[in-house]
Amino acid sequence: MNVTICGRTRHYRTVTFDAATNSVVLIEQRLLPHQFKTVATRDYQETARAIRDMVVRGAPAIAAAAAYGLAQGARAFRGNALRSFARHVRRIYETIKAARPTAVDPVNAMKWVRRAMNAGGTVLEKQALAMAAAEEFANRSVEECRAIGRHGVRLLKDGMRVLTHCNAGWLACVDVGTATAPLYAAQALGWRLHVFCSETRPRCQGASLTAWELAQQGVPHQVIADSAAGHLMQRDEIDLVIVGSDRVLGRTGEVANKIGTYTKAVLAQRHQIPFYVAIPLSTIDWNLRCGRDIPIEQRDASEVLCARGAMENRKSGRPVSVRVANPASGARNPGFDVTPPELVTGIITPAGIFRPRELWQRRNDLGFAG
Amino acid sequence: MNVTICGRTRHYRTVTFDAATNSVVLIEQRLLPHQFKTVATRDYQETARAIRDMVVRGAPAIAAAAAYGLAQGARAFRGNALRSFARHVRRIYETIKAARPTAVDPVNAMKWVRRAMNAGGTVLEKQALAMAAAEEFANRSVEECRAIGRHGVRLLKDGMRVLTHCNAGWLACVDVGTATAPLYAAQALGWRLHVFCSETRPRCQGASLTAWELAQQGVPHQVIADSAAGHLMQRDEIDLVIVGSDRVLGRTGEVANKIGTYTKAVLAQRHQIPFYVAIPLSTIDWNLRCGRDIPIEQRDASEVLCARGAMENRKSGRPVSVRVANPASGARNPGFDVTPPELVTGIITPAGIFRPRELWQRRNDLGFAG
Repeated sequence: MNVTICGRTRHYRTVTFDAATNSVVLIEQRLLPHQFKTVATRDYQETARAIRDMVVRGAPAIAAAAAYGLAQGARAFRGNALRSFARHVRRIYETIKAARPTAVDPVNAMKWVRRAMNAGGTVLEKQALAMAAAEEFANRSVEECRAIGRHGVRLLKDGMRVLTHCNAGWLACVDVGTATAPLYAAQALGWRLHVFCSETRPRCQGASLTAWELAQQGVPHQVIADSAAGHLMQRDEIDLVIVGSDRVLGRTGEVANKIGTYTKAVLAQRHQIPFYVAIPLSTIDWNLRCGRDIPIEQRDASEVLCARGAMENRKSGRPVSVRVANPASGARNPGFDVTPPELVTGIITPAGIFRPRELWQRRNDLGFAG
Repeated sequence: MNVTICGRTRHYRTVTFDAATNSVVLIEQRLLPHQFKTVATRDYQETARAIRDMVVRGAPAIAAAAAYGLAQGARAFRGNALRSFARHVRRIYETIKAARPTAVDPVNAMKWVRRAMNAGGTVLEKQALAMAAAEEFANRSVEECRAIGRHGVRLLKDGMRVLTHCNAGWLACVDVGTATAPLYAAQALGWRLHVFCSETRPRCQGASLTAWELAQQGVPHQVIADSAAGHLMQRDEIDLVIVGSDRVLGRTGEVANKIGTYTKAVLAQRHQIPFYVAIPLSTIDWNLRCGRDIPIEQRDASEVLCARGAMENRKSGRPVSVRVANPASGARNPGFDVTPPELVTGIITPAGIFRPRELWQRRNDLGFAG
């Protein structure tokens, strides 16, 4: 999407590849919204570190970074020996896989690139195929988001007030975003929406990343405390909720997403407000049979006990951490929750909008691999 | 309640009076939980400023501060002229009233003190009566909280896991607290509860004040993000919810309280978890006929856009403000919400526990003045 720095507007993807320097170029997301900066990783080890250290985050974005990282590593190989090239590629794959061990998207992305490389007979051919496959992976990812936008925009109307939670925007993808795709599609039609960004404590991705994105695209929006959504719904100030998801169970329609999503869904049902979840097909988990089996990451207590932000009067915009809570107290910090299908009006996918319990019967249209 | 500083434990009230120096002594709550300090106001103007600037906050606490402030101002009067004394007292009353213009409790407290002064025939007598009335007001306030504790503890059992929101603890009162009173009563019985303190963005009174209080009393507790309560209820980790209130409508049973209270009540109902509201009688509003008529304070956006806390590596524990949200974004910041009576299991008062719709029929036991 477009980013305007000092009055100059340029289009960016969160992840791109610079073939001339063989580097993966990433938006440094840990500095947002306080500083906008891109970083170029010089080799696949640096790309793996950038994934691990969350320079880039969001399942579709780290998948593309992994695909590019594999191609980057493959291209750095010198020589013609196929066996040592294969060992080299395996090493890259394992290094990048280990960067975010619980994420499935980078692994799938790298498998896709490796499959494409099989068609090459020489190291040079394989290197070129890897590059082309990574590029195609990223482009397809963007195309999926655009398709989500085309389907999702049908749920919107000019003037609507939409609530979102956390960041399922273009920063979490290669471009366009998932939950934000219908919003940007509506904007392209000239519609004026108002978006409420739920701040999403403890890491505040709604207040920092989603609000930054929307501001850059000129979409009217306001940040609210996570606790304020219920009151706004009571006062008829929210027409629709759209969120992303980390995992949707294809067999049951249950939705795992950032902590607080379930609460928004419960409130939306009480107020008869439509509640939608926007996802690429890779987010559907066809294996798990029960939401209780989704592992809920218990994250570090310090995220809840502290808050990160920029000090107003400091030259450097680099965020600092301040202790919000009582120093002698501990915290519980579940990172995700699971929303049952009866609270979800529909799942917006690149293949159309489905009721959550419809996913399984429509599995052949939705990338179910058996 | 007890406060332990450097290994020394002492009992404190949030508000007391030092007759020797004619000063109101307040716990400086803006520095908590990072620093514990009391401040003594030298005259009623300083007391009014302390109320205005939220050195002391919480309806029962500012009521007591106002009562003491009036007595403090009255005692500073030199001379025997009754008419100029009356003018002086009116000036004190108006100054303190203006400190928190929307709060009703300080006004009621000062009216109580002024009524008591009427019995005196001389300035000296009136000054003594003011002092005694302010002291009695504070003692009665503590007694009300103890009564809330005696009634509320019957709802608890050893081992229970209780959720609370914001701070309705002793820091908001003179001592003991409202929502915390049953918890401290249970602790006195030797029961071991586990309390989840919902952090209560944007001002984080749960993470800072309630967590500090509970830590000082040795009550096991954890801070959670406001968004995490729904997930914990889903996983059967919360047995009961107790919150305070800023205003309960005696005619309808509607409960106005810190933003996010309504959300907790909706979640509690879905999970069939009892939801209680603990209040002194002065919190019941017998006039308003509809929750929609309760003015909802729209507070400054900066509270949502920023977070206050202490920097870990700084010598001074004085909290600083950091910008959490995107600098170019605005915020909506409703300070309160209204919970309808059907979501409230019971109202815990000093006179017993009532269903919200029962308040009106029991109004004669609950201080209804007609």
